[in-house]
Amino acid sequence: MNHNLYNLLLSSLLLVASSAQAADSVDYPDGYRTWTHVKTMVLHEGHPLENPFLGIHHFYGNELAISGSKTGQFNDGAVLVFDLLEYTTQDNASTEGDRVLVGVMVKDNARYPSTGGWGFEGFAGDSQSERLVNDGGQSCFACHASQKDNDYVFTHWRD
Amino acid sequence: MNHNLYNLLLSSLLLVASSAQAADSVDYPDGYRTWTHVKTMVLHEGHPLENPFLGIHHFYGNELAISGSKTGQFNDGAVLVFDLLEYTTQDNASTEGDRVLVGVMVKDNARYPSTGGWGFEGFAGDSQSERLVNDGGQSCFACHASQKDNDYVFTHWRD
Repeated sequence: MNHNLYNLLLSSLLLVASSAQAADSVDYPDGYRTWTHVKTMVLHEGHPLENPFLGIHHFYGNELAISGSKTGQFNDGAVLVFDLLEYTTQDNASTEGDRVLVGVMVKDNARYPSTGGWGFEGFAGDSQSERLVNDGGQSCFACHASQKDNDYVFTHWRD
Repeated sequence: MNHNLYNLLLSSLLLVASSAQAADSVDYPDGYRTWTHVKTMVLHEGHPLENPFLGIHHFYGNELAISGSKTGQFNDGAVLVFDLLEYTTQDNASTEGDRVLVGVMVKDNARYPSTGGWGFEGFAGDSQSERLVNDGGQSCFACHASQKDNDYVFTHWRD
């Protein structure tokens, strides 16, 4: 194979790979801070998931996700956000600290068939571009698989 | 005074009193669960305010309240909701329980001049009618007065 042809082939492969990644990637959930708050929990030291999930967990959903959290069936386009904050406890009060990460689940059955129809991503701290999930969401899904009866979502709506 | 005249006078006085109460009363914040979530804190056993404020405290605001929480100045019509839930801690995770009360602050400088321009109310548990504040909000304001520089509000916006 001559050098030019090789370069052309390589460029084409990279383009395909890049397009494939873009097609599967999960967008940062712009504006989620004004979406509906579903619930909050706190994981303390000693919890099996403390690394990296120690902290205050807020869950937010867009309108499709809120509908899903009430029925246990999520339509394509539902987005759930898991906003993880550090916390400090002082004088018998626990208060929010810095953001650890923003976790995202996006429902799209066609794009994410191997992870229950959900795309998973994490964004480090306050970054909207530093991504944390590098296995196509398989490690996330390994835990969420237990929630098959609720469309792989742990979060349920409360009034 | 004859009996009929007495009854008429009494009825009129009750009507005036009832109107006065209605004019100052704080409405239940319909729909606040889909308002913007500002922050959360947890008060544990041993906190000076544990009775009656032990639990997970979620704070929500309508649009005017969110604007105010960013500037420290709240316009008339701002409504802040303090949603207090029980919590349980098990296996190093704290999760939400039943609702203890819904606290409300409504900004209206003309209606609530003696409490910093804020009307205060609490609704017991999931009730929208069982009211908890019976002193015109003076006991609430006694604590909020310390936050004069933030228009008597403890809650600040975080991104």
